[in-house]
Amino acid sequence: MAISAKLKASLSRTSWIRKMFEEGARLKKIHGAENVFDFSIGNPFLEPPETFHQTIKDLLDSKTPGQHAYMPNVGYADVRQSVAAYISKEQGIDLSADDIIMTCGAAGALNVIFKAILDPGSQVICPSPYFVEYGFYVSNHGGELKPVPSTPDFFPDIDAIEKEINSSTRAILINSPNNPTGQVYTKSHIDTLSELLRKKSAQFGEPIYLISDEPYRKIAFDNINIPGILSSYENSIVCTSYSKDLSIPGERIGHLAVHPNAQDRPELMQALAMANRILGFVNATALMQKTIGRMQGEHIDAGIYQKKRDLICNGLQLAGYTFTIPKGAFYLFPQTPIPDDVAFVSALQEANILAVPGSGFGAPGHFRLSFCVSDETIVRAMPGFERVMRPYQS
Amino acid sequence: MAISAKLKASLSRTSWIRKMFEEGARLKKIHGAENVFDFSIGNPFLEPPETFHQTIKDLLDSKTPGQHAYMPNVGYADVRQSVAAYISKEQGIDLSADDIIMTCGAAGALNVIFKAILDPGSQVICPSPYFVEYGFYVSNHGGELKPVPSTPDFFPDIDAIEKEINSSTRAILINSPNNPTGQVYTKSHIDTLSELLRKKSAQFGEPIYLISDEPYRKIAFDNINIPGILSSYENSIVCTSYSKDLSIPGERIGHLAVHPNAQDRPELMQALAMANRILGFVNATALMQKTIGRMQGEHIDAGIYQKKRDLICNGLQLAGYTFTIPKGAFYLFPQTPIPDDVAFVSALQEANILAVPGSGFGAPGHFRLSFCVSDETIVRAMPGFERVMRPYQS
Repeated sequence: MAISAKLKASLSRTSWIRKMFEEGARLKKIHGAENVFDFSIGNPFLEPPETFHQTIKDLLDSKTPGQHAYMPNVGYADVRQSVAAYISKEQGIDLSADDIIMTCGAAGALNVIFKAILDPGSQVICPSPYFVEYGFYVSNHGGELKPVPSTPDFFPDIDAIEKEINSSTRAILINSPNNPTGQVYTKSHIDTLSELLRKKSAQFGEPIYLISDEPYRKIAFDNINIPGILSSYENSIVCTSYSKDLSIPGERIGHLAVHPNAQDRPELMQALAMANRILGFVNATALMQKTIGRMQGEHIDAGIYQKKRDLICNGLQLAGYTFTIPKGAFYLFPQTPIPDDVAFVSALQEANILAVPGSGFGAPGHFRLSFCVSDETIVRAMPGFERVMRPYQS
Repeated sequence: MAISAKLKASLSRTSWIRKMFEEGARLKKIHGAENVFDFSIGNPFLEPPETFHQTIKDLLDSKTPGQHAYMPNVGYADVRQSVAAYISKEQGIDLSADDIIMTCGAAGALNVIFKAILDPGSQVICPSPYFVEYGFYVSNHGGELKPVPSTPDFFPDIDAIEKEINSSTRAILINSPNNPTGQVYTKSHIDTLSELLRKKSAQFGEPIYLISDEPYRKIAFDNINIPGILSSYENSIVCTSYSKDLSIPGERIGHLAVHPNAQDRPELMQALAMANRILGFVNATALMQKTIGRMQGEHIDAGIYQKKRDLICNGLQLAGYTFTIPKGAFYLFPQTPIPDDVAFVSALQEANILAVPGSGFGAPGHFRLSFCVSDETIVRAMPGFERVMRPYQS
C-alpha cells in the first residue's frame, strides 16, 4: 500500500465540509456561482482591518537585521510579552511572556498541546456537537476523543462528562463561542467544570487539563461576556488564533497560554516548546508574530456578523426552523425537521443551498449554516429555505 | 505526570545544538558576545534579497480580496504552478501544479510525508551522520529511524543500506547538500540507490519511497551540479524550504514535490493534503506562498558562503584539522583528534569556541561547525582552534 493504513482509514471519513465544498463547485458550474447559496464554509467574510497591511509595511521598512531569521521556538520574547499583557487583562489573571507560546494558528496549538500531554490510550473529552477535526488532532498523538452530548441548548452536560472521566482522561476540550452552535458557556459552567476537574485530578493523582479553544472570542454578540478559564482553574491552557479576530485565516498565526500555576509548569512549557519544534512548525512565522504583537486588542467589527445573525435568524424563524440563537461565532445549528439530517441537507441542495449535516459534528438531527456570507446571499436563499421546510410545517 | 511519557523521554535527549545554545548564552554573559565564537547554530548569516520586501509590499498593495483567507490545503494553484515550472527545469522532469504541496518549511513537509506514509513499526532509513531532528519527525508518526553509517567521505554506503531494508522499510531519507557534512551526492549514488529501491519494492510488494530533503540546494560551491532524484526514481518525493535560498528561516515556507508517476499517486496526494490539514498546519501561510510564487529561482549569493568555507577550511587545515571539504550547505564536519568528541568540544569551549559534537548527528569522533558567521568570527577564532589542537599534533 502506498500510504499509511491509519491515514487511509481517516481518508475514508472525509469531512462533510469537504464533501459540501465539492458539491458546491459542481452546482456553481451548472447554475453560476451567484445562484448557489454556500453556507458550508467558515471562511471569514471580511477583509483584515486597515492597520494590518500598514503594520506589515512598517516592519519591513524598519529593516531590522535578522527579522526573518530563526528565533526561539516559542516565539519572540517581545511578542509574547504583548500577548501576555493583553490576555492578563482579558482573563483577569497575571501572565508573563513565559506563559505564552506563539503557534501556527489554533489548529497548530491544539496539535502541540496534544503532542505534549497525550500517550497512546489517553482520552480527551469534548462536549458535542464539536468541530470534527478535534478527533484527528487527538488521534495524531495516540489519544482518543470522547464526545459527550451537550444539553439541548448546547451547554456542556457536566454530569454526563463526570461519568466519562477515568484514569486515562488527560483533558477536557471546550470551544466557546462554539463551532457549530454559536453557544457561549457561562461562568457557572466553567466553574462547575473546574470543580469537577479538581476533584477528578485529585482522585486519579494526575492533572486533568481544561483546554479552551477560543478562535471566536472576538466575535460575540449583544455585548455578552465570554468568561475565561484561566481565572477558574490552574491546570488550564487557552489556545486561539488571529484568523477570525483579524480575518487572516490563511496566515496561520495564533498562540497558546498556560496557567502560571499549572502543575509541573516548567516541564510542561518545555514539552510544549519541543512539540512545537519537532512537529515541524519550528516556530510561528516571524513576520506574522511581529505583526500581531503590534495589533493586540485590534479586531474586525463583530457587529457586522451580528447583523448577519439577525438577518438569517429572523428569516429562518419565519420559515419555521427551530434553533438556539447564537451568541457568538458565525454559525447557526438548526434542527432538521426529520431525523435524517443528511437527507434534509440533500433537500436543501435541490434549492442550491449548501449546508453541513449535523452528523459531521457528532450531532445528527441538525445542520450547520455558516453565516459569514454576504447579506444578499442570506436574503436570496430565504425562498429556498422556506420551500424546503414547507412540507414539514403543520 | 503532567506531560506525555513519550515526550518526556524525548526531552531527556535534548539536542546538543540546544545545549550549545545555552552554553553560548552563558559564555557570552561572562566574556562579551564579541569574544565568543559561535559555530553551533545554522541560522543563515545573510539578509534576504532586496526583492523579498518589495514583493510582499506589491502583494499588499494589490489589495486582492481574500488574499489572507483560507485557500485549498495544498496551497494556491498559481503558486504551485510557478513552483512546478521551476522544479521541472531544475530536475529535468515535467511536473504540474498537482504534484506540488506548499508546506510550513521542510520540517513541516517531512512531518506531512511521514504522517501520510508511516504506520506504527514502519522503518525509515537514513545515511548517518544526519540531522538529528529526523528521528523525531519519524517517531512522531509511529515510525523508527534507522541510521546507516556512510562511507568515510560521507557518501551513502549502499551495500550497508541494502542490508537494513526489510518489509517494514517505507522510505530512505537523504539530504544533499548534507547537514552536517556539506557533502553532495553524485548522480551515480542516486541511480544506484534508485535501482536498489526498485528491486526491494518489487521484492516486498510495496513502494519504498526515496525522500530527498534539499533545503541547501541553492548553497552549492565550485559550480557543482546537484543531481535530483525525480529523474531517477518514480516513488520519490522532494521537499525543501526557502529558508536558506532566501535567508528567511523564520518565515516557515517550503514545498514538497511528488513524482507524477508515483504508485497510487492520487491516493498519495490526498493523504499528503489531509496530513497537512490535520497536523494543524492547515496550509502554508498565504502571504509567503504568494511571495515565493513570484520569486522562483531567486536566491542569495552562495559565493559569500563559498568564501567563508575557503576561509575556515584554509585556517583549520593549517591548524592540523582533518576534514572532507564541503561542496555545499554551510557546515564543516571535521574529525576530532581524540575519539571522545564531547570532550574535544568542551576543550574548544575553553577557547570560547562553540561547536556541536558529532554524537549529536550519530557520528562520534567528529564535530560540526556552522560557518554562517561573519568572516571576523572565523578569523578571530583561529588562534583558539590552533591552541586546542596543538597537544594532538605530532
